[in-house]
Amino acid sequence: MTATTRADGRSVDQLRPVTIERGWSAHAEGSALISFGGTKVLCTASFTNGVPRWLTGKGKGWVTAEYAMLPRATNSRNDRESIKGKVGGRTHEISRLIGRALRAVVDTKALGENTIVIDCDVLQADGGTRTAAITGAYVALADAIEWGRAKGFVGKNAKALIDSVSAVSVGIIDGEPMLDLAYVEDVRAETDMNIVVTGRGLFVEVQGTAEGAPFDKRELDALLELGVAGCGSLRDEQSAALAAS
Amino acid sequence: MTATTRADGRSVDQLRPVTIERGWSAHAEGSALISFGGTKVLCTASFTNGVPRWLTGKGKGWVTAEYAMLPRATNSRNDRESIKGKVGGRTHEISRLIGRALRAVVDTKALGENTIVIDCDVLQADGGTRTAAITGAYVALADAIEWGRAKGFVGKNAKALIDSVSAVSVGIIDGEPMLDLAYVEDVRAETDMNIVVTGRGLFVEVQGTAEGAPFDKRELDALLELGVAGCGSLRDEQSAALAAS
Amino acid sequence: MTATTRADGRSVDQLRPVTIERGWSAHAEGSALISFGGTKVLCTASFTNGVPRWLTGKGKGWVTAEYAMLPRATNSRNDRESIKGKVGGRTHEISRLIGRALRAVVDTKALGENTIVIDCDVLQADGGTRTAAITGAYVALADAIEWGRAKGFVGKNAKALIDSVSAVSVGIIDGEPMLDLAYVEDVRAETDMNIVVTGRGLFVEVQGTAEGAPFDKRELDALLELGVAGCGSLRDEQSAALAAS
Amino acid sequence: MTATTRADGRSVDQLRPVTIERGWSAHAEGSALISFGGTKVLCTASFTNGVPRWLTGKGKGWVTAEYAMLPRATNSRNDRESIKGKVGGRTHEISRLIGRALRAVVDTKALGENTIVIDCDVLQADGGTRTAAITGAYVALADAIEWGRAKGFVGKNAKALIDSVSAVSVGIIDGEPMLDLAYVEDVRAETDMNIVVTGRGLFVEVQGTAEGAPFDKRELDALLELGVAGCGSLRDEQSAALAAS
Amino acid sequence: MTATTRADGRSVDQLRPVTIERGWSAHAEGSALISFGGTKVLCTASFTNGVPRWLTGKGKGWVTAEYAMLPRATNSRNDRESIKGKVGGRTHEISRLIGRALRAVVDTKALGENTIVIDCDVLQADGGTRTAAITGAYVALADAIEWGRAKGFVGKNAKALIDSVSAVSVGIIDGEPMLDLAYVEDVRAETDMNIVVTGRGLFVEVQGTAEGAPFDKRELDALLELGVAGCGSLRDEQSAALAAS
Amino acid sequence: MTATTRADGRSVDQLRPVTIERGWSAHAEGSALISFGGTKVLCTASFTNGVPRWLTGKGKGWVTAEYAMLPRATNSRNDRESIKGKVGGRTHEISRLIGRALRAVVDTKALGENTIVIDCDVLQADGGTRTAAITGAYVALADAIEWGRAKGFVGKNAKALIDSVSAVSVGIIDGEPMLDLAYVEDVRAETDMNIVVTGRGLFVEVQGTAEGAPFDKRELDALLELGVAGCGSLRDEQSAALAAS
Repeated sequence: MTATTRADGRSVDQLRPVTIERGWSAHAEGSALISFGGTKVLCTASFTNGVPRWLTGKGKGWVTAEYAMLPRATNSRNDRESIKGKVGGRTHEISRLIGRALRAVVDTKALGENTIVIDCDVLQADGGTRTAAITGAYVALADAIEWGRAKGFVGKNAKALIDSVSAVSVGIIDGEPMLDLAYVEDVRAETDMNIVVTGRGLFVEVQGTAEGAPFDKRELDALLELGVAGCGSLRDEQSAALAAS
Repeated sequence: MTATTRADGRSVDQLRPVTIERGWSAHAEGSALISFGGTKVLCTASFTNGVPRWLTGKGKGWVTAEYAMLPRATNSRNDRESIKGKVGGRTHEISRLIGRALRAVVDTKALGENTIVIDCDVLQADGGTRTAAITGAYVALADAIEWGRAKGFVGKNAKALIDSVSAVSVGIIDGEPMLDLAYVEDVRAETDMNIVVTGRGLFVEVQGTAEGAPFDKRELDALLELGVAGCGSLRDEQSAALAAS
Repeated sequence: MTATTRADGRSVDQLRPVTIERGWSAHAEGSALISFGGTKVLCTASFTNGVPRWLTGKGKGWVTAEYAMLPRATNSRNDRESIKGKVGGRTHEISRLIGRALRAVVDTKALGENTIVIDCDVLQADGGTRTAAITGAYVALADAIEWGRAKGFVGKNAKALIDSVSAVSVGIIDGEPMLDLAYVEDVRAETDMNIVVTGRGLFVEVQGTAEGAPFDKRELDALLELGVAGCGSLRDEQSAALAAS
Repeated sequence: MTATTRADGRSVDQLRPVTIERGWSAHAEGSALISFGGTKVLCTASFTNGVPRWLTGKGKGWVTAEYAMLPRATNSRNDRESIKGKVGGRTHEISRLIGRALRAVVDTKALGENTIVIDCDVLQADGGTRTAAITGAYVALADAIEWGRAKGFVGKNAKALIDSVSAVSVGIIDGEPMLDLAYVEDVRAETDMNIVVTGRGLFVEVQGTAEGAPFDKRELDALLELGVAGCGSLRDEQSAALAAS
Repeated sequence: MTATTRADGRSVDQLRPVTIERGWSAHAEGSALISFGGTKVLCTASFTNGVPRWLTGKGKGWVTAEYAMLPRATNSRNDRESIKGKVGGRTHEISRLIGRALRAVVDTKALGENTIVIDCDVLQADGGTRTAAITGAYVALADAIEWGRAKGFVGKNAKALIDSVSAVSVGIIDGEPMLDLAYVEDVRAETDMNIVVTGRGLFVEVQGTAEGAPFDKRELDALLELGVAGCGSLRDEQSAALAAS
Repeated sequence: MTATTRADGRSVDQLRPVTIERGWSAHAEGSALISFGGTKVLCTASFTNGVPRWLTGKGKGWVTAEYAMLPRATNSRNDRESIKGKVGGRTHEISRLIGRALRAVVDTKALGENTIVIDCDVLQADGGTRTAAITGAYVALADAIEWGRAKGFVGKNAKALIDSVSAVSVGIIDGEPMLDLAYVEDVRAETDMNIVVTGRGLFVEVQGTAEGAPFDKRELDALLELGVAGCGSLRDEQSAALAAS
């Protein structure tokens, strides 16, 4: 990679400091307070025995997610969606993305007729909130499944998780591909991409958008390469957090 | 490409029949009723002189889009979002995608302080509604800009459109990458991708999702190649429609 | 009648050109794209075996309707009701009118425990959208009932339709009663009336409103006479459309 | 008329006892608690100097109405529309009807740039709530206009009311036309009609609906005759109430 | 008490004139139109055999309340909550308060699996609407329980009401504690308190708020003493109303 | 006090451990993450120069608050109010309480035409969330005012805060008055009271509710005494937090 240095001193292929406080919540069956630099997301997993009516009797479980931001998570205050009386398009979009990302590594048959709802609430935002949410949600999910196993709701040897999953943002700034954009970088990026990758290195989701100039295949390839490497590091952070007792 | 034949007899790299009825609406400043096979989308562009308050006085225009489906556009009836009292996540997501795709080829300074709202209403759905919507919306947009020029709201030589834009879906079915999925194919696809490409062949948006197994780089490349070729054909259809007087 | 000529060259007792594209929708059990001059309404009938909970076990079916307009069906764009988060009074009123008009010619016992929802979506508006909707909805309804009969949900000889039904607007302009008002006429009318009449010529609904000066009995009688004659012609158009195979 | 006697002993062409408590409200600029038998509606008129933005500077006033029912106005309790979060179609329809009826007798130029909002809240319902509301609303409106005149907002000699207006329901029960239906009659009526008539005896609104069998011209004429006579009596009640100091 | 005289001539420890029209509603199982001076609240109790799903099978009944104001109950008109599409915080708060107050004197086991919904609609407001509502609601509740007993839904000797309950406002104006504030007093009060007391003189609810300067223990004690005495008088009014046949 | 010991070993007049992480948020002008035992509330204060339109030009500022809970703050998950599309009564009630409590110690004239919005988001709940919110909100408010002073929006010597304010819950369990109830205590309490007290020891708000048996004056006095003492300790915690640089 290049010698470009970023505002916070990182190299272009370097993640911000990652911390994962596993088990942050006293109530949830699984939880993690994850930070990617100044971005802090509280992820809680709520395990319920049983499934929504439309899934009853199929021998399968269900995993879904909801994403939201506290009103002052950002630099200036945003009105609450509860008070506006409706959930915005961005919130919906990210909630759906997190749910799809997690379901990609869940074997719903092995999970059995159980439901896990993951809440990802951004306490503080500094770019990459959706990717931090996915990465932390996986840790909360893993713990919730083990909680269900301990309670006898999930089969003793059922392999409900078939892989791990993490996510990172990448983007092109001043023509240069970079990993894990902070907010000040994100607003300047010509192209912005979120990449969701399994522990084995396969793609679950690739969402690239030209915010400024359209991009070509070569740029796309460079972004994908950065993102896959970043997700590899995040996978290692997840493993370390889950290995701690 | 391969010799695989699809349910409707197409080869894997073949679009469904495309028709564009330009100027379908008697009232809108630009309009197109586009069909991709059984998918029919009515795209209307509403031109208003002036911009939303937050943009006033910046010398720039605004282009936005709204997508919706008639309740019986699909095989079974869906409740109206107006009656449910809220717009669903999928609708929001697609409206935002269409808006971004169009803005990628608009020079808002050249457009001047004018607003264009594109409505994309799916009259009949058979897969690929968002990509048909983007492709038809471009035609409606182009006509609305010319309407604004004729009325003197847009500068005589202002190059408000810097390129054309079209979109197509691609996916992997039984391990095989295919172009422009019909509904029966879409529900079986392991990976589903929507690609938005400019007339010059650059990417505006790449949204790939593993619905089943995660995908690797080789598969991603095959999908991108199919999609870029498909968008090339769509660009030619758009040009032909706009060339007709 | 008089020798007055209207903006579009019609005589005061003349309908605009009527077209009925029966079976427009590939998915709906019955459908018709109807036009009254520049007014175009897509009517689809969705047949479901079974009835809403409150009607279960009474041996009766249910027919209901929903009316809506595309945002740019009109001369200037209207915001979507889905985005406003509520259905307006006018929309509600017309949906209820269409439902009542159709139920007036349905024998719900003969229909059996089946539900038919008619969606009337105005694709383009030029006056008389509610009357065009009722007239087209009847055709869609008739086909949906036959679909249900073919599937065995409706009795082989059950006379579920006891008559046909159509509707037309009439009004007084510059003191002169006129049939089937186009938009430019509608806004000028002193009195505006919508009449729903069965194939046999009986009234289902009479809704007259003085927009300007109140009206007297003689004027009311003249309007009713025009309307009944107009509905007779519409009944013939419906029969012709339904007679085609 | 015939010798038929009704459940409450009335003849077919007889109104229920009418009472009008003018000035019921200590706060409103005009008010009336009106009863048609067991139907009791509180009508208040709120006078505001000035008009809504869309009417500013046109030298005209505005009159509008809102209708609602207390949850236990009826025989069994209905959920509040405020709690359901939306106003039902019936409520909308009636509010619009009352507003149109009142505006038919108002000269908005003579009213000047003033707004009057009439609230009609049904405290107890026993059929004919919308017609009682219109009849009582006229009294509240007349007083509010005089209040505005006394305050100098309405011109000393401005003839803001060009006529009076009242309304009554009529219907056909067991083939017999009847005036002013009570609830038990209303539910049995084959045809149900609401008639709004000016003090001079001209029609403002005629809304007839076949709830059972469609009706013919002769029946329609009989209903109109009953209704016009009934409105004449109501006009006299209004005059008497307004004559009292 | 002191010799201070109030705007309406009352002494500081004197209630406004109280009237209770028991059985005002022809439909409700219990009802009372109560007035505290110019404040008039219509309280209706709707009795339903059975309980909400979450309470089924526990052998207990349920009592709940909803409070609302007519739009022109107040000096200037307030928009309807049904039209705003949401119930305001103040409305919610008072509804909850009334429900708690009533449940404090109900033995839900003795009530049996029956539900009573109390609607308190303010027809005219002049301060103290929530306390008038509680006081009138108790009368409606008592009658609804007797209705249920007569119908056999409540046990013949079941003591479903274990005490009576009433409420009154108190406040400090110009340093002086006063009972039952009228609107003009309420807006001037430094401290405002609502007290809910049982027939035996025990507290169910004490809600004191410093609108101006914070208050001390001595002031609090004075307010409580006034309030308990006022509730004693209200209890006597309730008894008198319920004693009348 | 007595020798009763509570589930967590506290004496009846003992607070749970209190921590205040002042300045938790990188973005807000004032913030505090406060904990009362297992209850954790993030309080952020957003300072804006200027006031809402209705207050413009009066030379006064405005302070308001919004309270909410994360969906899994509690033992079992609650649906989000944003998704339900409305804010519940409890949420409204508490938001209003916090706002009133803070405004009781603010001199809005000294604050000048500035607005401070306090968001209190419960990250984890274990009883007493509203009292923790008020206590933490005061710290955030104090810092936001100092931020405004440093920026020149608040006068150099303006005494915008006239006192401090804190809050605590008290209740009667098994006949015994206790301070600062944890969730397991709260659900068992016969009487539940929230007390808001200024730094000088005066009452701002007293809200006592009999959840079980009504309470008498002696019990009320015991609760008030406990609460005032508890608020004194909380005031000291606030001072200590604000004293740290």
